[in-house]
Amino acid sequence: MFAAHATKLHKIKMSQSTHFNEKDQQTLYDVIAARRDMRHFLPNSQVDEDTFGRILAAGHRAPSVGLMQPWRFIRVVDATVRQQIQTLVELERLKTAQAMGVREDDFMQLKVEGVGQCAELLVVVQAPDDGTVFGRRTLPRETALCSTACAIQNMWLAARVENIGLGWVSIFDPVALAGVLHCPDGAQPIAILCIGPVEEFYDRPMLEQEGWRQGRPLADFLFTDTWGDR
Amino acid sequence: MFAAHATKLHKIKMSQSTHFNEKDQQTLYDVIAARRDMRHFLPNSQVDEDTFGRILAAGHRAPSVGLMQPWRFIRVVDATVRQQIQTLVELERLKTAQAMGVREDDFMQLKVEGVGQCAELLVVVQAPDDGTVFGRRTLPRETALCSTACAIQNMWLAARVENIGLGWVSIFDPVALAGVLHCPDGAQPIAILCIGPVEEFYDRPMLEQEGWRQGRPLADFLFTDTWGDR
Repeated sequence: MFAAHATKLHKIKMSQSTHFNEKDQQTLYDVIAARRDMRHFLPNSQVDEDTFGRILAAGHRAPSVGLMQPWRFIRVVDATVRQQIQTLVELERLKTAQAMGVREDDFMQLKVEGVGQCAELLVVVQAPDDGTVFGRRTLPRETALCSTACAIQNMWLAARVENIGLGWVSIFDPVALAGVLHCPDGAQPIAILCIGPVEEFYDRPMLEQEGWRQGRPLADFLFTDTWGDR
Repeated sequence: MFAAHATKLHKIKMSQSTHFNEKDQQTLYDVIAARRDMRHFLPNSQVDEDTFGRILAAGHRAPSVGLMQPWRFIRVVDATVRQQIQTLVELERLKTAQAMGVREDDFMQLKVEGVGQCAELLVVVQAPDDGTVFGRRTLPRETALCSTACAIQNMWLAARVENIGLGWVSIFDPVALAGVLHCPDGAQPIAILCIGPVEEFYDRPMLEQEGWRQGRPLADFLFTDTWGDR
């Protein structure tokens, strides 16, 4: 029943592929551990073009279901467009605060975005569905979205290793933002990425440092064979 | 209007944070470039527990909206459970082939999963929504899914730097798989991760090497200020 899988095996060109060592492993784990969702940026700073290009290229090297590459990156350089985005984020911040109930005042004290101060603003848009069937017949929307998220995570790690902060702002009305960016039907902005130099990176996730919420350990989320079993 | 954001700024503890250098940058970019979606694994192989633990820990260090940590990892060690999963994947492979139209025969020649051969099988499940409002009032489902995808991308890079292959299989009926794993209402399996030693890593994405589809360059997907403008 599974034999058909092997048919083309001999045709696949394998590489004399890169072998990573313990030092490389430590480097990757250090980057993963030091990555933070940044909201505090150095105002009036810049990211040089080569660095920004490497971050974008890292994003574009993400995996994607059926090779869809469903991410689109819109770099915001026009001050008016940035101002419009900042206003949309502020509107949603106030709506979120109202939806917070008893935590409204605490929420309003948090810094939840750095749209006005970051050196570079990059909006990541989910492209209209291109009809790819491969690997997504049962989960079409989820797999496409997850591909784009993998691209963002690549950029996040790339920015961190470049000692550049990145914050994923998800506080916006996607329809309104699509309008500002003239996105076609079916395209959906899913992230406003604030990218730029920071004074320092947070020691721990900012929401933990601020006492908003504490993360739980891996052991709570790791099961064996069936949900809840350890 | 934005002044409130700064109120708690002084309280945030900043770190004497890790500074990465050019060598670290090259290492990360090498890992990102060498990562592949693997379908060919060495049968009868193992991943040692420490290595597997580091890969899981890297996943758990992912960002998540509002610190939800919405990922759940189910490690499959029972041979019968693995067999059930393999059967579900094969059923969906045949259904996908039928949906492929003129490319059905080509699709059936591709190796699209390594469930039966990989050393470790890890199912990633999207947890039931915990009601978090922070950062997801307008995009609740998308932001939660993207958080889980970031965890998977972290594991993908971690596996690669450990010289271990990882393949994301998305060819399954999520309701049927949730049944096999006894997931509660609202939980949705989104990935079957095949993890284990490989003979070699593909030089390029397997779908490119097989002539199924070619990726397009970053320049096609990078816009300035508005969709389609460069």
